[in-house]
Amino acid sequence: MLSSDLSPAVVYDDLAAAAERLRGAAHLTPVLTSRTVDQRTGHQVFFKCENFQRTGSFKFRGAYNAMSQLEAAQRQQGVLAYSSGNHAQAMALSGSLLGISTTILMPNDAPAVKQAATRGYGAELLLYDRRVTSREALAQQLCAERGTVMIPPYDHPQVVAGQGTVGKELFEQVGELDVLLVCCGGGGLLSGCAIAASELSPGCQVIGVEPAAGDDVTRSFVTRTIQTVHNPDTIADGARTPCPGQVTFPLILQHVQAMLTVTDEQLLRAMFLLWERLKLVVEPTGALATAALLEGLVDPAAARVGVVISGGNVDLKSDLFERFKAL
Amino acid sequence: MLSSDLSPAVVYDDLAAAAERLRGAAHLTPVLTSRTVDQRTGHQVFFKCENFQRTGSFKFRGAYNAMSQLEAAQRQQGVLAYSSGNHAQAMALSGSLLGISTTILMPNDAPAVKQAATRGYGAELLLYDRRVTSREALAQQLCAERGTVMIPPYDHPQVVAGQGTVGKELFEQVGELDVLLVCCGGGGLLSGCAIAASELSPGCQVIGVEPAAGDDVTRSFVTRTIQTVHNPDTIADGARTPCPGQVTFPLILQHVQAMLTVTDEQLLRAMFLLWERLKLVVEPTGALATAALLEGLVDPAAARVGVVISGGNVDLKSDLFERFKAL
Repeated sequence: MLSSDLSPAVVYDDLAAAAERLRGAAHLTPVLTSRTVDQRTGHQVFFKCENFQRTGSFKFRGAYNAMSQLEAAQRQQGVLAYSSGNHAQAMALSGSLLGISTTILMPNDAPAVKQAATRGYGAELLLYDRRVTSREALAQQLCAERGTVMIPPYDHPQVVAGQGTVGKELFEQVGELDVLLVCCGGGGLLSGCAIAASELSPGCQVIGVEPAAGDDVTRSFVTRTIQTVHNPDTIADGARTPCPGQVTFPLILQHVQAMLTVTDEQLLRAMFLLWERLKLVVEPTGALATAALLEGLVDPAAARVGVVISGGNVDLKSDLFERFKAL
Repeated sequence: MLSSDLSPAVVYDDLAAAAERLRGAAHLTPVLTSRTVDQRTGHQVFFKCENFQRTGSFKFRGAYNAMSQLEAAQRQQGVLAYSSGNHAQAMALSGSLLGISTTILMPNDAPAVKQAATRGYGAELLLYDRRVTSREALAQQLCAERGTVMIPPYDHPQVVAGQGTVGKELFEQVGELDVLLVCCGGGGLLSGCAIAASELSPGCQVIGVEPAAGDDVTRSFVTRTIQTVHNPDTIADGARTPCPGQVTFPLILQHVQAMLTVTDEQLLRAMFLLWERLKLVVEPTGALATAALLEGLVDPAAARVGVVISGGNVDLKSDLFERFKAL
């Protein structure tokens, strides 16, 4: 990847341009505070609530930013993505808004609620049997046959730039911070927010937070070489990605100051606090940054701490509440 | 009640004064919107989110407004309230902030989480056996013995004025509305918000919403005479009040245009939507106004509709989620 060795794939101007494209399309999400949390942690904490973003997660920003820059010919061919999670819904809604036909590859055993939500936002679903079909091969075949453009969930400069508007907005809403905690799957949100910090709050320590079982980026960060993990066992389904990306990893090395991990048990306790005290429906991945905060992993000297809550898409009919009861 | 016959117990100036007292003490709660809800209902809907208020409900406004006006001698004697719900926590925190010792009478079989929350905000709990003791008699006895002031949950002019700041804030945040939906227990929040509407959005139709099983205010409204209900069977625990109050009822007759009821089944569906789509933890009573909206009980010609979400204090370890699963 010569380009990333020589000059960064994404710079702050890309975030500023993304913010312009997203104006009126994305929600300017609120920042909430809690005196309970402040008293308990000793920091002044600002929660950036992307669970209130359209489609229920920050993913809408990156998908919309990338799709809105396609040329006329590309728009006519439509776009393709594979995801059974938040990226699928983000792509589906962005396609509807931009008038671009969107196809989502999803395994035929994906939960019915997720299939319905993605169809509800206007995408065409293409279900495949994951025992016999590789989604990568299927996607390549479809792109070749149909000429459709593939938009990946994180490893794409315009996706990173879109996700970075979360951090840009937060700094514009609350001013400079001493620490910013961001959850990390493939690193799109983390690297984007870190670029925002480097411009708008240069002294801010940006920390990525992963589930302990899926610590590929943490190990990659320490060794400065991409490390992988295979299908990690964690409730943080949005952070089960195998490794940081070719685009995101150099940006993380350049702009992120530390990586941390939390256990599923710590994650559940953080979720419970966000639900019970802050009255926020937050998905497990969305509580990663909060878990690191509550576990006291932040420098006690940090006065002002930003925490990104990345999303709130959780199945309310699942056994999650049994887990709450067991806390 | 000569006073309420001759001149209203609460006027808009009382709300304006309450708002000044609450500045810096109460949260200015956000107003959320949802394109999903707008598309489904055909209205432009504004949700005023008092679940984000301190102590998790609007009750903090009224309690703080009333307690902050006590004279020095009264402050020294402390205050008393009986409640096992949101008013208890609101009184406890207000007392802590104002340096007034607060005693809450609670039945000794009240849920441990509610006892702990109220103690956590700094109140003294006085537990009684409700099989042998009347809380009214016990409260009177304590007030007589100790000289403490009793602050009721709704039937008090300064409590009404405090709750009315919810409506005042909403109109200041979004401008005039065609309809405002407000949940109704004893009518403190409803009458206060209706006073705000009469001043800030005179053409707005203010509608109170009760649980069908606890329709005392609806029947009182229709007959223009106070009607009662005994211990109604509804999940809307904040609206199990027996009747509208001497202070609130004349205000409701003067400023409210209609009363509606919804069933527990409708309430559960509204809660589920608020949790799943808006990512808000809302308690059953807090979803009453939303339920009326979703059931299509609002004039289709109304363009701009305000909905008050009154609180979010729900036991996440209860069997609520079993009820969600059954939807």
